[in-house]
Amino acid sequence: MTSPSSRPVQAHLLATEFAAVRSQTLALAAPLSEADCQPQSMPDTSPTKWHLAHVTWFFETFILERFEPQFEPFNPAFRVLFNSYYQTVGEQHPRPQRGLITRPDLAEVKAYRADVDRRMVSLLQGSVDTDLAELLTLGLHHEQQHQELLLTDIKHLLAQNPLQPVYSAHWPLCSVTSVPLTWVAFEGGVVDNGHAGEGFAFDNESPRHNVLLQPYALSNRLVTHGEWVEFMQSGGYQDPRWWMSAGWEWVQSQRIAAPLYWLADGAGGWTTFTLHGRAPVDPHTPVCHVNWFEADAYARWRAVRDQLPIRLPTEAEWEHAAQSPGADWHIPGNFQDNRALHPLPLTRHQAGQLQQMGGDVWEWTASSYLPYPGYRAWAGAVGEYNGKFMVNQMVLRGGSCATPRSHIRTSYRNFFPTDARWQFSGVRLARDA
Amino acid sequence: MTSPSSRPVQAHLLATEFAAVRSQTLALAAPLSEADCQPQSMPDTSPTKWHLAHVTWFFETFILERFEPQFEPFNPAFRVLFNSYYQTVGEQHPRPQRGLITRPDLAEVKAYRADVDRRMVSLLQGSVDTDLAELLTLGLHHEQQHQELLLTDIKHLLAQNPLQPVYSAHWPLCSVTSVPLTWVAFEGGVVDNGHAGEGFAFDNESPRHNVLLQPYALSNRLVTHGEWVEFMQSGGYQDPRWWMSAGWEWVQSQRIAAPLYWLADGAGGWTTFTLHGRAPVDPHTPVCHVNWFEADAYARWRAVRDQLPIRLPTEAEWEHAAQSPGADWHIPGNFQDNRALHPLPLTRHQAGQLQQMGGDVWEWTASSYLPYPGYRAWAGAVGEYNGKFMVNQMVLRGGSCATPRSHIRTSYRNFFPTDARWQFSGVRLARDA
Amino acid sequence: MTSPSSRPVQAHLLATEFAAVRSQTLALAAPLSEADCQPQSMPDTSPTKWHLAHVTWFFETFILERFEPQFEPFNPAFRVLFNSYYQTVGEQHPRPQRGLITRPDLAEVKAYRADVDRRMVSLLQGSVDTDLAELLTLGLHHEQQHQELLLTDIKHLLAQNPLQPVYSAHWPLCSVTSVPLTWVAFEGGVVDNGHAGEGFAFDNESPRHNVLLQPYALSNRLVTHGEWVEFMQSGGYQDPRWWMSAGWEWVQSQRIAAPLYWLADGAGGWTTFTLHGRAPVDPHTPVCHVNWFEADAYARWRAVRDQLPIRLPTEAEWEHAAQSPGADWHIPGNFQDNRALHPLPLTRHQAGQLQQMGGDVWEWTASSYLPYPGYRAWAGAVGEYNGKFMVNQMVLRGGSCATPRSHIRTSYRNFFPTDARWQFSGVRLARDA
Amino acid sequence: MTSPSSRPVQAHLLATEFAAVRSQTLALAAPLSEADCQPQSMPDTSPTKWHLAHVTWFFETFILERFEPQFEPFNPAFRVLFNSYYQTVGEQHPRPQRGLITRPDLAEVKAYRADVDRRMVSLLQGSVDTDLAELLTLGLHHEQQHQELLLTDIKHLLAQNPLQPVYSAHWPLCSVTSVPLTWVAFEGGVVDNGHAGEGFAFDNESPRHNVLLQPYALSNRLVTHGEWVEFMQSGGYQDPRWWMSAGWEWVQSQRIAAPLYWLADGAGGWTTFTLHGRAPVDPHTPVCHVNWFEADAYARWRAVRDQLPIRLPTEAEWEHAAQSPGADWHIPGNFQDNRALHPLPLTRHQAGQLQQMGGDVWEWTASSYLPYPGYRAWAGAVGEYNGKFMVNQMVLRGGSCATPRSHIRTSYRNFFPTDARWQFSGVRLARDA
Repeated sequence: MTSPSSRPVQAHLLATEFAAVRSQTLALAAPLSEADCQPQSMPDTSPTKWHLAHVTWFFETFILERFEPQFEPFNPAFRVLFNSYYQTVGEQHPRPQRGLITRPDLAEVKAYRADVDRRMVSLLQGSVDTDLAELLTLGLHHEQQHQELLLTDIKHLLAQNPLQPVYSAHWPLCSVTSVPLTWVAFEGGVVDNGHAGEGFAFDNESPRHNVLLQPYALSNRLVTHGEWVEFMQSGGYQDPRWWMSAGWEWVQSQRIAAPLYWLADGAGGWTTFTLHGRAPVDPHTPVCHVNWFEADAYARWRAVRDQLPIRLPTEAEWEHAAQSPGADWHIPGNFQDNRALHPLPLTRHQAGQLQQMGGDVWEWTASSYLPYPGYRAWAGAVGEYNGKFMVNQMVLRGGSCATPRSHIRTSYRNFFPTDARWQFSGVRLARDA
Repeated sequence: MTSPSSRPVQAHLLATEFAAVRSQTLALAAPLSEADCQPQSMPDTSPTKWHLAHVTWFFETFILERFEPQFEPFNPAFRVLFNSYYQTVGEQHPRPQRGLITRPDLAEVKAYRADVDRRMVSLLQGSVDTDLAELLTLGLHHEQQHQELLLTDIKHLLAQNPLQPVYSAHWPLCSVTSVPLTWVAFEGGVVDNGHAGEGFAFDNESPRHNVLLQPYALSNRLVTHGEWVEFMQSGGYQDPRWWMSAGWEWVQSQRIAAPLYWLADGAGGWTTFTLHGRAPVDPHTPVCHVNWFEADAYARWRAVRDQLPIRLPTEAEWEHAAQSPGADWHIPGNFQDNRALHPLPLTRHQAGQLQQMGGDVWEWTASSYLPYPGYRAWAGAVGEYNGKFMVNQMVLRGGSCATPRSHIRTSYRNFFPTDARWQFSGVRLARDA
Repeated sequence: MTSPSSRPVQAHLLATEFAAVRSQTLALAAPLSEADCQPQSMPDTSPTKWHLAHVTWFFETFILERFEPQFEPFNPAFRVLFNSYYQTVGEQHPRPQRGLITRPDLAEVKAYRADVDRRMVSLLQGSVDTDLAELLTLGLHHEQQHQELLLTDIKHLLAQNPLQPVYSAHWPLCSVTSVPLTWVAFEGGVVDNGHAGEGFAFDNESPRHNVLLQPYALSNRLVTHGEWVEFMQSGGYQDPRWWMSAGWEWVQSQRIAAPLYWLADGAGGWTTFTLHGRAPVDPHTPVCHVNWFEADAYARWRAVRDQLPIRLPTEAEWEHAAQSPGADWHIPGNFQDNRALHPLPLTRHQAGQLQQMGGDVWEWTASSYLPYPGYRAWAGAVGEYNGKFMVNQMVLRGGSCATPRSHIRTSYRNFFPTDARWQFSGVRLARDA
Repeated sequence: MTSPSSRPVQAHLLATEFAAVRSQTLALAAPLSEADCQPQSMPDTSPTKWHLAHVTWFFETFILERFEPQFEPFNPAFRVLFNSYYQTVGEQHPRPQRGLITRPDLAEVKAYRADVDRRMVSLLQGSVDTDLAELLTLGLHHEQQHQELLLTDIKHLLAQNPLQPVYSAHWPLCSVTSVPLTWVAFEGGVVDNGHAGEGFAFDNESPRHNVLLQPYALSNRLVTHGEWVEFMQSGGYQDPRWWMSAGWEWVQSQRIAAPLYWLADGAGGWTTFTLHGRAPVDPHTPVCHVNWFEADAYARWRAVRDQLPIRLPTEAEWEHAAQSPGADWHIPGNFQDNRALHPLPLTRHQAGQLQQMGGDVWEWTASSYLPYPGYRAWAGAVGEYNGKFMVNQMVLRGGSCATPRSHIRTSYRNFFPTDARWQFSGVRLARDA
């Protein structure tokens, strides 16, 4: 990895960050039993125990192995067992079988974490090499990504259980204001996109480059559950007009009629599964657990209903808007730190202002996940981090209620295939000016 | 259930048996962590936790619900969650998703067991209804079947782990005698088959009925690993002549070249996975973890090699032979009680005597699993126990090293599809006289 | 092949039979266009063109190649292309891709037939070797089997076409008598089963052997469409009580609610697809295109409805009954020769007599397709004809409206998997006496 | 459809074009037998007979039904049978079952063509409505697309036949010059992309819009078979470094080691299947039948080998270059009109000039198939032509040896999923300047 700009390293600061992120991961796993941490509910998800081990493997493999004098692996078998997809590092345990690894058990994985933590802290005692500092920062951002996945994956697992168990009994309360959907306009032109400045960013956010934008507008807020129910009631899932051909095939073959986790309540209403258990669908809350096909179909339907050239935003439009002066993009922002773990309704209307840009739900864009012009993957094994996934996926922006606030940036590019629904993914609309 | 013959019931005897079987199940699960008890390694297997709960559900649903005054379920949701396949009882949780039920956790399942045990014991205090006694006996035999499955299923799960973890470190030691394969002849004629006498038997062992047998002979012992390696070395898995058409398709499409769990050791030899960890294949041990296609192909190959009309025995031949005077069929018998949990080599040769008829490995027969003439399934929900599986399966006889000795009889009919390999299943040969 | 008994061979008689069978196959293909002869509608079926070529390949490979001086293949590539499953002969073109072989075209396949016919006739000029005579007889019976498959396969193909095209406009007319279902009793005992006498039989019909039968009765006639509709109206396809576990899974996963080819006519009635086009379901016609699961479920349902121990017959019971003095088993018999190509209703009631034993529909039995005691497959490549399919299939007896009359015997064993429906397969009931 | 600009219509000119395109389609089918025209070799392809009918259906449904007084369909069932994917028109026959429609047979489909041709010609007698003229032009371009598909689909079908039949015996001969790969540079900047001018274009080529390009260069010619063999010999298909993650999974799971249709010749060389039969791979010919994963991997490998920032071109870069003054982009151009039906080697080197931009093989780009800014699909059913496929596909440019010359433009956007290989698709390289 050569990309993060070099800077004077303050080892104790790094150590503090390290401790904070590492303990937060354990805190997220705390409400879970050993049984909860074991299974894999579908090939796309991973067991909690695997997440706990894999992020630790990252530090052991990319930092301790290189920087620790007399490095000895905690357990040589873990090199394969907890490698996700780094071909450069060697073999990987088959992804769909992560839930079958019962040994090491949870206690041993926690011992693994503790051992690596201890050695990492020891490494951070003296002066710190720039490369080490950069890899450590990468490792922490990597772990924060897995914090989010841990939450979305455990939600998916618990939702399979007919007992509908609760991850956290705490239910986020907030007052609700019905906020009309309005449009915030941008002039476009040749603008800059991509990461700028000193802080950490993934290689896929670089290089900063010019983009040409036509005039456009974004909706002031996210699409709500209430608005989604209107789409459903108008036959949205039954009408091929709104759907990409591949999306319509998905709807038909999977018999889709609502977002993931929704169940009809038998009285004309809907419930959904949350990390706080099953709950009625609240009309003011941003819609979540929709995939790109659904987001795109909604925009297409809304364009006809509202007689406006409505569509999903491109990632360049989104980023430019998020960086606009009045955006104040992630304040207040419903992130993992809030512990709501569910998108929240708006509590006040700020005329002419973009709201909910940061947090709540990842916002699907109209952009394919492709390399920026002049993109170069990092050197070495960490070069497998992003580049090799740049095909057949769509970009999402803005972070969600499961994203740590310190993890996200306006230039941050998340990406998922068009049929993925188990993330906290929702919709902001755009339109041509 | 009307079939087991009525008899004076001794409640305290039943209570003793109940306690013995129930505690043995827990003893089998004792070496396992909560993590080990959670996952399901393939749709055919079940998690240990599910086994522990399901056998308890059987007593709760078929006995407590009917005989307990003021019956209250331990948890109403368990009625669906731990129902295996009883349509009469209602819905079932989808079989392939048993590993995703993380709650109840293991402690709660054990509490469920304890609660049902307490209530069952209380029910067995006074005089006991004949129906209750019969259902209880059925429930205990049912639980013994699941003891065996618990062992074969956990073996399959642990075998998926590249760390090759050990269920029990204890390794069975015994002296070994190389025993030649010889033939024990039987005259045949019209003989009786099926359950006779007072003891418990499943409905599928009835009614007792005449069978017409041609003269035949059985091999004195089971086919060994050493003999299997000869088959492999002579190209057995590469030659379509030995295989049923469907078996050849299985070999080709799955690229099968050895029994389940075998790995080449890189030095021309083989290892296999056992409940005591990975171990070299011992040539004197009975072959196990072969399916019907393999057993049948072996017999076909051996017939040509030995220039004899060798084949698999029919179940009627097997049963008749096992009941012959000199058979002493399950003494000594390597059953679950021995705790070897692996087939064992013979230690001495008894000329003219059938050895290893009981225990070690289930013996594939040439017989399809079909109803006996005049077969009637038990009345009520327990009528779903056996009858509805009487198609597309083959019969196995004799019990294995994972079968409790008190569970097995010479009339006992086990059955599995032709491609099942994860049971302790092996081969005894037969030939026309 | 060593099995058919040797006899003085009359070459000119063989030549006459040869010509008759061969021209009948072409006659069956005559109503079909080249387009009709090309596609394969599912992996179980074959294109008409492939049938025409494969039966020719049989004569070329097993007779001409061995007996013709200076044998030259018509086209060496056909050896692989038109080999069905004879491993001994060598490679086979993958079965599911038979429909993609557009060259040779139909004209060339007919030229292939003509060439082989010419050479076969030439071979039959002089005195004929016994082996040749036996192989020729086998080849003709083989071709007759493919005549039936040609009809059932083309029916399946045409049924996929929304235009519902007609194979033959000729519609069989006959008067109809409503014939009550009664029982014809048999005493059982030790009886003989299997082929006896001089005529041709397949190896799977041998050896003739003793079978022990309990007293039993067969229904005087086949189950009718009208009786099947009663089963459907009483919820037969929705009630797991009637179904084997694997059958219930089939019904549920495939959403089965009627026999193959049936469509609701929108007015409470049903139509079915026939070789004469789509037609209303006639209540007096024997039910056809049901699989073993359905046949078995029907018997189970009828047993409860009629309060009788009704079940499917075993193949031994069926064969014994068919050979009983009064059975006159295939007179008149609705076979291929009648050109009805559809099961026909009875036209008169013959009290105490088994009717419809031969022809109309193949009758599912309760017997798995297994080798008879002492069975030996024929020597050489033709030994692959039957033996290697003796697992995971059920036996059917009696022939159908697509079977040539000269092809069938009371000892004839047909076999299909439990889910096969595209044959003319139906139901005769049995009961314990 | 409102998009093609209105213009004075010359009916006789349209009639001439109509006749030319329609007869060319029949000419392409002329070497095929009725058998060749029937099957469907995979779900992605269609039978020749279906192509012949579907393009006719297009004229009947979109023009005759609207403009013909007293319109009567040729056969009402064809409306469903030959509808490809127009939901607005109604139901469609299931795509994977197109090969099972044996009736209408080929003669009837040709009669259908003749009937529609006659009625179209009659419609073109008088003055022609602008809408009609535009739809007719669309229909002709539609038919030209299917001409190309007819060729690639029949190639795929014939290649499945072990006899490796020949579509056309004529083998294109040409002299060969080994032309070095050099780079032609472009300055970039804000340039125009998308269709301009009066001629026909699909809706997906509009609107014309600004694009911002960094300086770049394109390779002067296509990557050749010889260069591809170097990639293979250097282990290209065995090294995950060159592959997108999804591409590596494809290579591994499908065991890919060469382009589609290639077979090792047993002497260290390779052959490939062509429309003229199987032929040795010629090192000077442009590589074809590679998918996007392969094209992208090749560029990645070449970048490391040549130590240059090599990659695939974006579609904007390609289009800008093709429109550059010296490009003369499709002269001479190896198109369908040449009847070579195979990519051809260069015969001379033109220094500093882009060669092979038009024809030979479609060139994979680095661009996802997405709508241009401000894109609007055509109104009505023809709006389903392009827009609903704008996801999960990559753009290809330039046309191939199977494309009619009059069909292609520099703004033309073809698109296929990343794993499609049966088109004539190849590789031109780009690099950052």
